[in-house]
Amino acid sequence: MGRVAYQELEDTITQAFVRAGMADKKARLCARFHAEASRDGVYSHGLNRVPRFVHYLANGWVDPHAEPAPVRQMGPMEVYDGQRGPGILNALTATDRALELAAEHGLGLVALRNTTHWMRGGAFGWYAAQRGKILIAWTNTESCMPAWGAEDTRVGNNPLVMAVPRPAGPVVLDMAMSQYSYGKLQTTRLKNEQLPYPGGFDAQGNLTTDPGAIEASRRILPTGFWKGSGLSILLDVLAAILSEGSATRGIDEIGIGNCTGCSQIFIAFDPERLGSADHMQRIVDEMAEYVNGSSPVDASRPVTYPGQNTVSTRQDHLRNGVVVDDDIWQEVLALAGKGGIS
Amino acid sequence: MGRVAYQELEDTITQAFVRAGMADKKARLCARFHAEASRDGVYSHGLNRVPRFVHYLANGWVDPHAEPAPVRQMGPMEVYDGQRGPGILNALTATDRALELAAEHGLGLVALRNTTHWMRGGAFGWYAAQRGKILIAWTNTESCMPAWGAEDTRVGNNPLVMAVPRPAGPVVLDMAMSQYSYGKLQTTRLKNEQLPYPGGFDAQGNLTTDPGAIEASRRILPTGFWKGSGLSILLDVLAAILSEGSATRGIDEIGIGNCTGCSQIFIAFDPERLGSADHMQRIVDEMAEYVNGSSPVDASRPVTYPGQNTVSTRQDHLRNGVVVDDDIWQEVLALAGKGGIS
Repeated sequence: MGRVAYQELEDTITQAFVRAGMADKKARLCARFHAEASRDGVYSHGLNRVPRFVHYLANGWVDPHAEPAPVRQMGPMEVYDGQRGPGILNALTATDRALELAAEHGLGLVALRNTTHWMRGGAFGWYAAQRGKILIAWTNTESCMPAWGAEDTRVGNNPLVMAVPRPAGPVVLDMAMSQYSYGKLQTTRLKNEQLPYPGGFDAQGNLTTDPGAIEASRRILPTGFWKGSGLSILLDVLAAILSEGSATRGIDEIGIGNCTGCSQIFIAFDPERLGSADHMQRIVDEMAEYVNGSSPVDASRPVTYPGQNTVSTRQDHLRNGVVVDDDIWQEVLALAGKGGIS
Repeated sequence: MGRVAYQELEDTITQAFVRAGMADKKARLCARFHAEASRDGVYSHGLNRVPRFVHYLANGWVDPHAEPAPVRQMGPMEVYDGQRGPGILNALTATDRALELAAEHGLGLVALRNTTHWMRGGAFGWYAAQRGKILIAWTNTESCMPAWGAEDTRVGNNPLVMAVPRPAGPVVLDMAMSQYSYGKLQTTRLKNEQLPYPGGFDAQGNLTTDPGAIEASRRILPTGFWKGSGLSILLDVLAAILSEGSATRGIDEIGIGNCTGCSQIFIAFDPERLGSADHMQRIVDEMAEYVNGSSPVDASRPVTYPGQNTVSTRQDHLRNGVVVDDDIWQEVLALAGKGGIS
């Protein structure tokens, strides 16, 4: 693991995307979301995902020029077709539009269908919260997890994002419906470690903390067993229904993977417009004080609310450089035409 | 365990509520929700909860005559104050209003503050789905669970409900944020059994399947560890912000318990109004076929979607009588003035 200055990271990823066929402005915006994911410690959807995204552009699975097209409009609710453009840009357009609708109506909902992987879902929560808005958003995915009681994978891990502004640092939840991601399984296996808690089933059907055994069986565990399985199913059908798009089954039928053809929901609230901005601030401050004041199991690890630890990671990375995987950094330098020289 | 005919169950609970000071019509409606919870196998919030509710009426902690009062209105979004009336009636009024708003605008949102325990949250999902509407609803609660990494209970278990209509049987998720309820711990302990999966920590801080050890420590486990803890925190602050009501900390300060003073959100969608009813039916039918077609771990237990098993329990109970705890049934008969004669 090395460290790369934030701006160099963003600039290099931008160049890689321009070389892959994206227009300058779109490349910069996509690069920023990847670089910011790494900056915030979400490595799986930051620099590490750049080569795969370039590969998708090269194969024509993501159209770098496509823009979301309006499908339906009804008061504060709008539906768009993402036309398989870059998932980050589609989701950002949807978030921006949901924020505009919220500023007008108090709440705004944008449903987006036929889009592609939005990368780090939490990014849109941070984006909204930094603009003083509340966001609830989720996506469906291709299947990657067995439903509870099943052996074969027919359910997505359907990340759910909820974000509330707070001047001292927003409250942002970004959770997938599997207990661990495949990325976490891989990095844990490569370190020859065990997962802290069981993350799936081995070939014999026993719960295990061995990441390699779970990768082999593909029986990754829904978070909370039957609960994460059920929540995943509901998030999936709701996203597909409201966007008039595809559910996990339909995404599986498209067969490209990487969420190609997925459906997403963005619900925004504007506390200023709703007249509840002062109340909001009191509620989140009181919650933060209450949760942070919990008696910790481990005295060296204070109890935090979702998003709280991100701020310190971000500050460290901005000060000391963003942590990168050296091999992937070399690969992205090459994609940027920098010849792999760091 | 005995069996009681559904109508006798509903009539008896109605009488108990009338004797506790409720008006006939309100008593009947509340009794129906309790009886239907037992009918659907949700015993913890059915007959078993009747004595406690009568106790709350007797103590003046629930005002049997209070009605929700409008606080704020903005397009498809309305805020009400529940004035600590019966939680079932307040939640039903909020659901009905959300459905009306959805019929007009496509979506409707009602935020309800200062209400009391809604009993079985899933009931409002079933109610909406049976009327062809989609419902997303959640409540906050007093604290009953430690945040992840904490020893003391400062987070609620904040049940979340999501329901989608389906002629063959709606898709209804009703999940609390703890892996198991305290009710499940109690019934498991009384049977001298262990939980199927760890449900919390013992006094030494080890994960355990021993229900008594968890009841003693009160360190019940958030579903999916840090994930259920985080989701609980976000559902809590969102309910409080949008209803301009109390979060878990404020409910703790009220100090009555049983969710007195809690905040609830009801978001409804009308697929007919949105023009997506046909698409919805295709999506849920395809999901059902896909999930039900999973290869089961145990050949005798087909893989189901949320709500699917409820239908068979209901049919059995309507045919053969609703399963009741004999002691509680005698207690409710006495509350109904029937002298404890079954």
